[in-house]
Amino acid sequence: MGLKVATIGGGSSYTPELIEGFIKRYHELPIRELWLVDIEAGREKLEIVGDLARRMVEKAGVPMEIHFTMDRRKALKDASFVTTQMRVGLLDARIKDERIPLQMGLIGQETNGAGGLFKALRTIPVLLEIAEEMQELCPEAWLINFTNPAGMVTEALLRYSSHKKVIGVCNVPFNMHLSISKMLGVEMNRVHIDFAGLNHMVFGLHVYLDDQEITNRVLEMLGDPEIQMTMKNVAPLPWNPRFLKSLGVVPCPYHRYYYKTSNILNEEMEAFKSGKTRAEIVKKLEEGLFELYKDKDLDVKPPQLEQRGGAYYSDAACNVISSIYNDKKDIQVLNVQNKGSISDIEYDSAVEVSCIVTKNGPIPLTMGRLPIQINGLVQQIKSFERIGAEAAVAGSYDKALLALTINPLIPSDDLAEKVLQELLKAHKEYLPQFFNSERLQEPVEI
Amino acid sequence: MGLKVATIGGGSSYTPELIEGFIKRYHELPIRELWLVDIEAGREKLEIVGDLARRMVEKAGVPMEIHFTMDRRKALKDASFVTTQMRVGLLDARIKDERIPLQMGLIGQETNGAGGLFKALRTIPVLLEIAEEMQELCPEAWLINFTNPAGMVTEALLRYSSHKKVIGVCNVPFNMHLSISKMLGVEMNRVHIDFAGLNHMVFGLHVYLDDQEITNRVLEMLGDPEIQMTMKNVAPLPWNPRFLKSLGVVPCPYHRYYYKTSNILNEEMEAFKSGKTRAEIVKKLEEGLFELYKDKDLDVKPPQLEQRGGAYYSDAACNVISSIYNDKKDIQVLNVQNKGSISDIEYDSAVEVSCIVTKNGPIPLTMGRLPIQINGLVQQIKSFERIGAEAAVAGSYDKALLALTINPLIPSDDLAEKVLQELLKAHKEYLPQFFNSERLQEPVEI
Amino acid sequence: MGLKVATIGGGSSYTPELIEGFIKRYHELPIRELWLVDIEAGREKLEIVGDLARRMVEKAGVPMEIHFTMDRRKALKDASFVTTQMRVGLLDARIKDERIPLQMGLIGQETNGAGGLFKALRTIPVLLEIAEEMQELCPEAWLINFTNPAGMVTEALLRYSSHKKVIGVCNVPFNMHLSISKMLGVEMNRVHIDFAGLNHMVFGLHVYLDDQEITNRVLEMLGDPEIQMTMKNVAPLPWNPRFLKSLGVVPCPYHRYYYKTSNILNEEMEAFKSGKTRAEIVKKLEEGLFELYKDKDLDVKPPQLEQRGGAYYSDAACNVISSIYNDKKDIQVLNVQNKGSISDIEYDSAVEVSCIVTKNGPIPLTMGRLPIQINGLVQQIKSFERIGAEAAVAGSYDKALLALTINPLIPSDDLAEKVLQELLKAHKEYLPQFFNSERLQEPVEI
Amino acid sequence: MGLKVATIGGGSSYTPELIEGFIKRYHELPIRELWLVDIEAGREKLEIVGDLARRMVEKAGVPMEIHFTMDRRKALKDASFVTTQMRVGLLDARIKDERIPLQMGLIGQETNGAGGLFKALRTIPVLLEIAEEMQELCPEAWLINFTNPAGMVTEALLRYSSHKKVIGVCNVPFNMHLSISKMLGVEMNRVHIDFAGLNHMVFGLHVYLDDQEITNRVLEMLGDPEIQMTMKNVAPLPWNPRFLKSLGVVPCPYHRYYYKTSNILNEEMEAFKSGKTRAEIVKKLEEGLFELYKDKDLDVKPPQLEQRGGAYYSDAACNVISSIYNDKKDIQVLNVQNKGSISDIEYDSAVEVSCIVTKNGPIPLTMGRLPIQINGLVQQIKSFERIGAEAAVAGSYDKALLALTINPLIPSDDLAEKVLQELLKAHKEYLPQFFNSERLQEPVEI
Repeated sequence: MGLKVATIGGGSSYTPELIEGFIKRYHELPIRELWLVDIEAGREKLEIVGDLARRMVEKAGVPMEIHFTMDRRKALKDASFVTTQMRVGLLDARIKDERIPLQMGLIGQETNGAGGLFKALRTIPVLLEIAEEMQELCPEAWLINFTNPAGMVTEALLRYSSHKKVIGVCNVPFNMHLSISKMLGVEMNRVHIDFAGLNHMVFGLHVYLDDQEITNRVLEMLGDPEIQMTMKNVAPLPWNPRFLKSLGVVPCPYHRYYYKTSNILNEEMEAFKSGKTRAEIVKKLEEGLFELYKDKDLDVKPPQLEQRGGAYYSDAACNVISSIYNDKKDIQVLNVQNKGSISDIEYDSAVEVSCIVTKNGPIPLTMGRLPIQINGLVQQIKSFERIGAEAAVAGSYDKALLALTINPLIPSDDLAEKVLQELLKAHKEYLPQFFNSERLQEPVEI
Repeated sequence: MGLKVATIGGGSSYTPELIEGFIKRYHELPIRELWLVDIEAGREKLEIVGDLARRMVEKAGVPMEIHFTMDRRKALKDASFVTTQMRVGLLDARIKDERIPLQMGLIGQETNGAGGLFKALRTIPVLLEIAEEMQELCPEAWLINFTNPAGMVTEALLRYSSHKKVIGVCNVPFNMHLSISKMLGVEMNRVHIDFAGLNHMVFGLHVYLDDQEITNRVLEMLGDPEIQMTMKNVAPLPWNPRFLKSLGVVPCPYHRYYYKTSNILNEEMEAFKSGKTRAEIVKKLEEGLFELYKDKDLDVKPPQLEQRGGAYYSDAACNVISSIYNDKKDIQVLNVQNKGSISDIEYDSAVEVSCIVTKNGPIPLTMGRLPIQINGLVQQIKSFERIGAEAAVAGSYDKALLALTINPLIPSDDLAEKVLQELLKAHKEYLPQFFNSERLQEPVEI
Repeated sequence: MGLKVATIGGGSSYTPELIEGFIKRYHELPIRELWLVDIEAGREKLEIVGDLARRMVEKAGVPMEIHFTMDRRKALKDASFVTTQMRVGLLDARIKDERIPLQMGLIGQETNGAGGLFKALRTIPVLLEIAEEMQELCPEAWLINFTNPAGMVTEALLRYSSHKKVIGVCNVPFNMHLSISKMLGVEMNRVHIDFAGLNHMVFGLHVYLDDQEITNRVLEMLGDPEIQMTMKNVAPLPWNPRFLKSLGVVPCPYHRYYYKTSNILNEEMEAFKSGKTRAEIVKKLEEGLFELYKDKDLDVKPPQLEQRGGAYYSDAACNVISSIYNDKKDIQVLNVQNKGSISDIEYDSAVEVSCIVTKNGPIPLTMGRLPIQINGLVQQIKSFERIGAEAAVAGSYDKALLALTINPLIPSDDLAEKVLQELLKAHKEYLPQFFNSERLQEPVEI
Repeated sequence: MGLKVATIGGGSSYTPELIEGFIKRYHELPIRELWLVDIEAGREKLEIVGDLARRMVEKAGVPMEIHFTMDRRKALKDASFVTTQMRVGLLDARIKDERIPLQMGLIGQETNGAGGLFKALRTIPVLLEIAEEMQELCPEAWLINFTNPAGMVTEALLRYSSHKKVIGVCNVPFNMHLSISKMLGVEMNRVHIDFAGLNHMVFGLHVYLDDQEITNRVLEMLGDPEIQMTMKNVAPLPWNPRFLKSLGVVPCPYHRYYYKTSNILNEEMEAFKSGKTRAEIVKKLEEGLFELYKDKDLDVKPPQLEQRGGAYYSDAACNVISSIYNDKKDIQVLNVQNKGSISDIEYDSAVEVSCIVTKNGPIPLTMGRLPIQINGLVQQIKSFERIGAEAAVAGSYDKALLALTINPLIPSDDLAEKVLQELLKAHKEYLPQFFNSERLQEPVEI
């Protein structure tokens, strides 16, 4: 017997990290079959990554069977866990998500603003289809999604899918926990952080070192330009120290998009002009990675992968799978249905919150009311996520326009419509719900 | 016996409209004594306006005694209603509120963004002091405030004053009701609108003509550039029609600051460059008005006052006073404690909502949940109002910085601090709570 | 054209009061056609009442056409208002509702406890069917229900019917308002009461005389045995004065079932033994009334009807119809969807609350949080109402048992099952949903 | 250094179990000083128990110093944990709490109804005083209370004490977990139960065996009279199986007081007549226990203690202390501030809910909405607890009368006042707040 795991988007450049994660945890998470799935257009990458995965497993000496296939249903059948890590439209679509808004003077980013919405519009229909297949082929299995924008995607899955065993994972809270521990010079297990908010909009409400709350001390350190926390995917612009202090809770790196919009925009405009937006850089990195992966002598995750960004994403996924399997009841920060864990957010909505992870899935910890100073922004992004998810499912031009106009990064209804039209045109191929009455076969890409 | 009303800021250029309102309603609202109060620096204007008021009353033949005084306590003693319409720092302060943000490329406006916060910082301490005096000198009296920013001011009064009989009034909902009726070509009493939101952030949730809901029809008309609703204080930029339709509820004119930020900013920058910001225009208009008021032959409200903007402000105040006095139980849109009338807004917060007005004050109608597409922005402005009110009361630099940074019109923490410092410097004289440990005698101006 | 009103249960002994109400209001509510509807088994009564109605109308000289029919669909077609006042199983069913529980030492009453549940189980399916017919035949019409138990019935209609224009009316709040005004010796319009709660579980939260709150004074008066408020349908047992004072809000007469359970039970046991339960008395009164109604010389509502109880029920119905028709925006206490008007009660549930009545129906006033001392009992009855409504719709033995066991008037799960079985047996004919897979033709009786 | 623990009510017959618990956990919870505290009237028992404790510790070979003292402040000074297990008025008071209500035909029990209220009225002022002393002498220490009624007591401490590090513990959830596991024939760690409610009013919302929900299967088993769960302190009356099934969640043994009131009352009346109420039995058992404790050869907890009832109470206390000390993050069911963990209960109220226990105290798990069928009763008891706590603090006759009348076990306002007067008279000595303006020195007894 043994565990069966299916990884949709198996040809992703991240997959070796996931394989490494499973190998490291084999003693507690004995996966017997790992199925890497991709679509026809991704066959070559899937084969490269699949072969590397086999070499890695062999080198590690663990009896995990690696399958790779274009037949998703075969992979899903009787799986215990399904991970999803896809990129509909490949990195070329991401380049458009970034460059088209920037052309109009708008933030261009893959999880926020106009770019974030369009990634969601392309992704949500595919994930809903996978969820429905799971309900048929492996109804007891957990869907562990780490496709971005994970907040809007989880919102859509929780609201519109009949398969309810869905968890969104993100590496941001783990990275914050790790960075703060490093900054303090202590082991992570001595630091406890209450996390609450939305994906890429999560706050550390309280930070404890052992049994002392040290939130203010952490904010002071983070305000010190010398030691500001940084993340690869976000321009490491320094926070205003007085603002951090008055905020009273620890923002995540992505909060810069909202509290430092103009500074971020300046940076992005520079990158735009020089053809070095994040997507363009990543595309080059990926090409290099796949060259490495082809090397028949490579049988471990190559260190170059770490520059790719997204470190610990796979760890986050492996951890939640292992904690469910082993009923670990440890604390992880996950995207789940709120149910009152954050008082001011609607009961049925997706939130990113500290949970304990049991055999029966995650249970959110009660985080109470959000401090008033952050409540407004969180609610605003939740409004955006809900309308965006609706637009994705309905293929509604008007809802998409609404989502864009209420987004705080888009400063006008007219600009919203302009960027909407450009992006719709650019991504037409991957947005059948906006153009067809019949849904096309999904153009899933990783 | 008879009613006694005290009007703080009696030397305001608006006062003739208020006088006219009281004269028109004398048959149902027999005010015996009207006390116009101002501070020493406003003595001249108070005397001009007070004399005009006497001529108006005499002309109308109503037995209303007009008193004017610099002794506020004497005016408050045993009053039944107190209206407040002041401008701490005069129009010169408003000019700074508008021009200093614009210098930095930020929206400069007297009720939104940085300018709105600073008007509140100057005003709130004065109003709290008046409320405390009322608690001592006329505890049964209602405080009817129409000093802007009415949302943040009402929030502060409800939270921090021991005098709880407080109502904020604004002419925006009345104007919306009137404009929509005119647009439809029907009498106002055939149109019913459910209003809910915050001051200058209020929405018409449902519009009815007789017993039919016509919200979508109204939105379509408002999206037609030919007939877009306009207001003197707001640049009449046309709404994007598809956005209006998708919004599904009727925005107020001030929503342009949030849904058309960049367009508004462009307009304001033009005005800034040509020295014709709204404050500068108003200042000229006011000088002209006072010249008119001095004319001993003038014994009615001069028609030029209508260009001043703020039409119906006084009507709104007169109406609420008369409805309380006469237990009219009619519907008016007022700023009051929420208590659940709008489901998603905190119970204790100030909201602007349709109320019935009884002898015992306003009771908000139950408006239910805000549509998700507007909930986020409303919550964000509520966060701003609450932190801003706290900053005003505490004289806290950090809270003021926080309020500015979380405001959606200020795109960066660094810019927030920059504009904060400039405005603090510019308004130092009127912000004793930020500079002194002892509160100075308030430099109230009208 | 003119208004068309349909009255389901037209053969009720109450109908002459309703006719009188419509006649009195003809100047403002010009009903052209009034359709009295009943079922075959009620044909004789319908004809007696219908003839009386025609004589009354003729005497009054108003041009209202009185139709009577057994064809409900014909009556509903294009109606503007539909009133429902039925008694499925006639008074004999009520006698069982009262006597069977009393046999086991349980409160026997038609709107509370086991009897109340069974009246609902018989009534709800019939009303849901009427509501569905309305959705087809007169979708714009308001359903004004005054069939008891109005709380559970309104809950069921709001949750399970596709026709949403539903209002439940009850005379209790009006009677409380009237009694208190009489007790104070003042006109009703000088007394304002904020009502909130559930049907037959409504409290006066605040009582005002003119602009002064006098709740405590009223409670003191009500605690005085000399002047305790009474109602015909409720044993006028005196309240404990200290309890009333500590309660802090004005209970309704039916609260005696919960705060004086043992005293009420003693009274009822006496009546049970002597064959004089309320149902038995009413049955005799009704027989007498119909004898009177037959008198061809009778052309007004006979004074004897007032002893029947339920005074002002018809007034309550006429008032709400007239206020909708005339857009009166006056305050009435109605059973409507909560939507946050009472903070602690679920958003979608039916509540009995002060509303203003507009052309577009009632809008509840915001009553805020219930005082903690009454919140528990109200919630408990709401639990009972929701489970009871579910039982009625599903025909579920288990849900009915659950509803009875959680009811505070039934002190044991075993007794609950015993009384359930006896009542099911006794009412089998009128509970097809519990006995058949197919729904029988409704045994509606009035 | 090492840990210092203070146990108020150290002379309790339960103390040997606590000592045993600390000895068993010494390897993970190295208590260096354990201070047993009692009042002068309890000196003899304290010495008996203290000597036994020393023999137990010596026998076990752990270096834990046992101190005993009448000087509470000395014991509290710099403690890390304080446990409270007191009985103000000794068992004689409990006998009155049980027998006086029974005299009037009312349930007589120490945590529910009139008896429960009076135990709270005697206990709460003493515990508040202890909490205030802790705030002064050991502000970082956790107060672990297992004095009943733990729900009302925790409510009072959370609302009225300035010391906020308070946890209420109870053995009921642990016993339910244990009983259900035994009934299923599996290890406890394979069974997970989501607990939510109030103290002695807690429900198992969902029961899982490994990764399968088995709630319905458990309810079926519990409905089987052969295997009904029993507890020493509650008459093991069988549940109605159909009711259990329809309830859909697992009740606790004390729910019999509410769902089987009449059956329980019958049992209690028998005990009352034969002089064998629970208090009378326990008093005899205690006398026997203290005889055993005096035996100088006894150096372990005697097995007879288990008949005393309250098994696992001390385990519950030891577990929470150890989990805080060791940051175990395990799940325990504790009485803590709600903060939204149970959606329908007020944010600030005490609830009994599954928590994880961290170095910084317990964090409740998010349990979401209560099923509607149980919400009502839970709310009603919460109303009782809040008003009861208020009565205890204020010494208010009216609030005490209110608490009794709204309690579902007391069927009339008049009976409520009668039992109130009798109990006030009987406990006068221990209720200084009701009789004196000055608070007497506390008559604390254990």
